[in-house]
Amino acid sequence: MKKKPLILVTNDDGISAPGIRALIAIMKELGDVVVVAPDSPQSGTGHAITINNTLYINKIDIDPDIDAEYSCSGTPVDCVKFAVNEIMQQKPDLCVSGINHGSNSSINVIYSGTMSAAVEAGIEGIPAIGFSLLDYDWNADFEPCKTFVRKIASEVLENGLPEGVILNVNLPKLPESDIKGIKICRQAKAIWQESFDKRKTPHGKDYYWLSGKFVNLDNGEDTDEWALANGYVSVVPVQYDLTAHHAIQVLNGWELNSKE
Amino acid sequence: MKKKPLILVTNDDGISAPGIRALIAIMKELGDVVVVAPDSPQSGTGHAITINNTLYINKIDIDPDIDAEYSCSGTPVDCVKFAVNEIMQQKPDLCVSGINHGSNSSINVIYSGTMSAAVEAGIEGIPAIGFSLLDYDWNADFEPCKTFVRKIASEVLENGLPEGVILNVNLPKLPESDIKGIKICRQAKAIWQESFDKRKTPHGKDYYWLSGKFVNLDNGEDTDEWALANGYVSVVPVQYDLTAHHAIQVLNGWELNSKE
Repeated sequence: MKKKPLILVTNDDGISAPGIRALIAIMKELGDVVVVAPDSPQSGTGHAITINNTLYINKIDIDPDIDAEYSCSGTPVDCVKFAVNEIMQQKPDLCVSGINHGSNSSINVIYSGTMSAAVEAGIEGIPAIGFSLLDYDWNADFEPCKTFVRKIASEVLENGLPEGVILNVNLPKLPESDIKGIKICRQAKAIWQESFDKRKTPHGKDYYWLSGKFVNLDNGEDTDEWALANGYVSVVPVQYDLTAHHAIQVLNGWELNSKE
Repeated sequence: MKKKPLILVTNDDGISAPGIRALIAIMKELGDVVVVAPDSPQSGTGHAITINNTLYINKIDIDPDIDAEYSCSGTPVDCVKFAVNEIMQQKPDLCVSGINHGSNSSINVIYSGTMSAAVEAGIEGIPAIGFSLLDYDWNADFEPCKTFVRKIASEVLENGLPEGVILNVNLPKLPESDIKGIKICRQAKAIWQESFDKRKTPHGKDYYWLSGKFVNLDNGEDTDEWALANGYVSVVPVQYDLTAHHAIQVLNGWELNSKE
């Protein structure tokens, strides 16, 4: 009999978010599950780690079907580091992060705590996937995600992933019957047009809320934005070698070592 | 007469760090300078943004030669967003971040607030460079950096950068006369081997400090780690399109849309 795979589950919306509970439920069908997730929402934390502050870890006992479950006072990346180094006796066969309440497609990948947790697992040599549903609602319906999440996670358990590659999976907010399938995509070129909402504290001091509008600048039909807008689940292979290899030749043409 | 370039300066060690003061001094020779930097150290914040909390901005008047200087309660990425959207009347010609107290070479690029600020400027279409000195000391000697920082910033002001590319510049901790020159490099493959230092609060509760050891896994002589170890300033072109384009073909071979 084949050994059951060991699966690490984390997220950035916090350990009590419905999205992670949905993800745990699916992963329990596929293997033995360990959960280490932030004790509070950590959206937008990107690849932050906690080096100037202390970390608190609490063991949680809610679900008797889970091997172990812990909450952590740190970021999603801290959770993965702690899980792999302090909690798990062996390297997990898979790390899944999410299901995020809201999109992590396109440039969102870079701000996303959900995706950064998956990327951190990738750096540590663990096949990893971040899952996000295009619905920011706390009470979002994760039911239509289940078939696709199970399918993609099973494929990764079966095939592994190319070295240095993590999957960024986004799911459209649609009934399962309306989802057309899964598309492998590239990250669309997009930006956030920021606005800062200026307010006053009750004591008269100015403060600001960061806000903004997502603007897709990319008309390509091979992008995650296109796939999602057209009813597909988008899968973008993501890398953590940030070198712009194509630019090395350009820069080597510069006179950086001249004496003038 | 050519118009003086407009330069945005930020960092992650905080507005009072000697590293940013050294960078400001160099940039004042090259153009008009606006500073927006965190009001406290933000090392390891990566590409975090502040969406679940308020932001406070304070105008600083220390240096009469600076066009404007502000401290911000948020992350380095918040600083860039606020500067570009709320403070600066026109898009800066250059954004420089640093000089960081400590290395941001290799995989450190992904955890680095210094580099994330530069990457954010790049996303906003601004030529951007992150500078780091391989010396974590608050009283590090930034004097030997000056020639190289001036040279690289001048080249970027002169030539611009390829679209979607930011520079990650690291400087060895050496006297200027011992620095052999500047090398264009790729990001070395490396990891942090984490350790968690477990302690007890005065009240008996367990807590942890994240710590670790940097391990270079890459013997290539075209990497930033090699350049720095051999007395060169390393310049890595960095991109924010995280798509692992080479993996798209592999994933398209999977049976993700089959019905079984």
